[in-house]
Amino acid sequence: MIERVVVLSTGDELMTGRVVDTNSTAIASRLAALGISVPAVLKVGDDRERLLWALRTARDLGDLVIGTGGLGPTADDLTTEIVAQFIGRKLKEDTAAADGLRQRFASRKIDWTENNLKQALFPEGSTIIPNPAGTAPGFRVDIGGGKQLVWLSGVPREMSAMMTETILPWIRQQQTAQHQALACTFKLYGLTESKLDDLLHSVNLGNEAKLSFRAHYPDLSLRLAVTSGEHRGLNFVRLHDQILNLLGGYIYAEGDTPLEEVVGQLLMETRQTLALAESCTGGYISHRITSVPGSSNYYFGGAVTYANDAKKRFLGVQPETLDKHGAVSRETALEMSQGIREQTGASIALSVTGIAGPSGGTPDKPVGTVWMSISMGNFHDARTFQFTGDRERIIQGTSQAALNWLRTTLLG
Amino acid sequence: MIERVVVLSTGDELMTGRVVDTNSTAIASRLAALGISVPAVLKVGDDRERLLWALRTARDLGDLVIGTGGLGPTADDLTTEIVAQFIGRKLKEDTAAADGLRQRFASRKIDWTENNLKQALFPEGSTIIPNPAGTAPGFRVDIGGGKQLVWLSGVPREMSAMMTETILPWIRQQQTAQHQALACTFKLYGLTESKLDDLLHSVNLGNEAKLSFRAHYPDLSLRLAVTSGEHRGLNFVRLHDQILNLLGGYIYAEGDTPLEEVVGQLLMETRQTLALAESCTGGYISHRITSVPGSSNYYFGGAVTYANDAKKRFLGVQPETLDKHGAVSRETALEMSQGIREQTGASIALSVTGIAGPSGGTPDKPVGTVWMSISMGNFHDARTFQFTGDRERIIQGTSQAALNWLRTTLLG
Repeated sequence: MIERVVVLSTGDELMTGRVVDTNSTAIASRLAALGISVPAVLKVGDDRERLLWALRTARDLGDLVIGTGGLGPTADDLTTEIVAQFIGRKLKEDTAAADGLRQRFASRKIDWTENNLKQALFPEGSTIIPNPAGTAPGFRVDIGGGKQLVWLSGVPREMSAMMTETILPWIRQQQTAQHQALACTFKLYGLTESKLDDLLHSVNLGNEAKLSFRAHYPDLSLRLAVTSGEHRGLNFVRLHDQILNLLGGYIYAEGDTPLEEVVGQLLMETRQTLALAESCTGGYISHRITSVPGSSNYYFGGAVTYANDAKKRFLGVQPETLDKHGAVSRETALEMSQGIREQTGASIALSVTGIAGPSGGTPDKPVGTVWMSISMGNFHDARTFQFTGDRERIIQGTSQAALNWLRTTLLG
Repeated sequence: MIERVVVLSTGDELMTGRVVDTNSTAIASRLAALGISVPAVLKVGDDRERLLWALRTARDLGDLVIGTGGLGPTADDLTTEIVAQFIGRKLKEDTAAADGLRQRFASRKIDWTENNLKQALFPEGSTIIPNPAGTAPGFRVDIGGGKQLVWLSGVPREMSAMMTETILPWIRQQQTAQHQALACTFKLYGLTESKLDDLLHSVNLGNEAKLSFRAHYPDLSLRLAVTSGEHRGLNFVRLHDQILNLLGGYIYAEGDTPLEEVVGQLLMETRQTLALAESCTGGYISHRITSVPGSSNYYFGGAVTYANDAKKRFLGVQPETLDKHGAVSRETALEMSQGIREQTGASIALSVTGIAGPSGGTPDKPVGTVWMSISMGNFHDARTFQFTGDRERIIQGTSQAALNWLRTTLLG
């Protein structure tokens, strides 16, 4: 039974403050969902003494140690060797991993250098953890006292894939059925964290259930986990339904589906094709739509009309409209959505025009003012929004609002 | 002399993965700038045993311990009391701090409750650290063996203000000029980590300099830091120049400038305007270009021509070209860049067409095959690339290659 996991994040870039350690947060969050606590997180640099210290310290505190970083081919990637020293084992080349590396390099036509073989060395007795998203595999090894160590790539995408595909299933296997959490995630649009907190005030969780929020702008999600107890199943269903009732209108998905995928599914189901005309978002909505595999089935394409001239030339926006109402206006947004729909023949078109800042704001139209418009069938309307924050935040908030409006329009 | 600082981040929200710990990163980064190393960062929850453990551990490792979190008025804010227990002192009310709290509440018209006085209690012998951005002051106290502890608010804004106004000046006061670090960062394109390692093999760092890599696909950067030594300045210049010589062609920026900003600066300097025609990248290059404030000065806009029809309609790609050579071909890429340049009147145009996957690949043109083309003045050429990885990685790699080609073209 794994009950306490100590997380180690390693790398000089963490210790000089050049990189924020998101790995330990992501790992702790996935473990929390399984009802497993993290008594401590340790961050150390690429340094033998420190890493040995961290390994000793972590083994003292936890049943399992999960570490990340330092598996690469370069001289400062010391992890594997130091772990071997820590448990008094030799390093041994894993033939399958070495072959995998050579193949990977060959298929990508990258020159093979022998130092890459370093990534196929593991402490004797290790179980190799495949890396579906990158080069360096990880490993799991016994560190004595019934305790184990898992080491993963420090690249967040790779760490995440290795957790999902190998480590979490392995941990779940070792939990008894009663200790397996029942959990679900609701993805939300249109709520702040404190409003969400307010809305959930009446929910009686008891000792066995836990609600956790995760706000990663512009996304907000709520996770319900019931980790133990005899009536775990009933309890879970009751809480799940109560939350659905309280938050219904704000939930755009159950599970971890991103909003652009929800929109994509609706476009597929309703057999529509989409075109976009973006100004202030500069292609970001188009990027989100096309980040979904298969989006070519419903996405025609779009125009990024940053300059006024581009709005006229690509979308046929009237010069008088721009002169009289400005580029950020109801009228321009309406002509943009109509223009892109006519140009492309798509069945639904969305346009966005606004001021992402930091400059360009006026007292009438401050930075963060955005107009968007949708044209679909006989429906043709525009809406305005006021976003706050820096340029990046305004672009992200705008994209979320636009996708959500597409979603509700497609739902009818 | 303060040489080694251990950073403690505390709070239950860190241990369940709900909040990313940015405090320790910010603190480490400010310390690195002073040439002070952080041997370890510890994260623990709001728990007496864990916090005592962390305090003991941190004192063993560092000359100074800087902790954050748990200074508030509520029941789970235990820090001050536990620190007092750790060093065997009593808690004592600081009259000035208590008055300050009462005034703050009065001036903001917030009801005063007596539990707020908790925030004016400090271990006996503490020096109070004002909190210019919030309610709870922090403190600095002797923890024996010539070592000190500093405790700050866990709210990032408040922590940052307390560091800037009190802690960093206090640390700097104690440093001699000789101990301040010299550091620089090189941003690189066209290298793998292992190739980089190879190229740097001949660099003799000695004991006082350190090189560290950071790979965050598609970005790779190298940091040189010289932290001590009598000939620190000379040493730094020698190593800096040696790296420039070895890596010259791969360096696209010194400092932390992203590639899209480098391209933007070159467009500004050469007074050019840019237009983009994107297929497989779906607007991502446009998003990167427009994520730079002021990009409206040189970015005209672009077309996301996902469907073949969009390539014909927006860019005037000939139907025969698409029929004969396919959408992912030298010929189509060339017509796309020419088309968008003609449509927009921009002085430089870039086009991208490829297969981002996961489906759509053929034996001839596997997933990851990308053609791009640039049209500028009389220059009109196309290049092909083969990327690997998942859809997201192919899109990112393509955007980096495209921006870098823009950069080298603009440089002439």
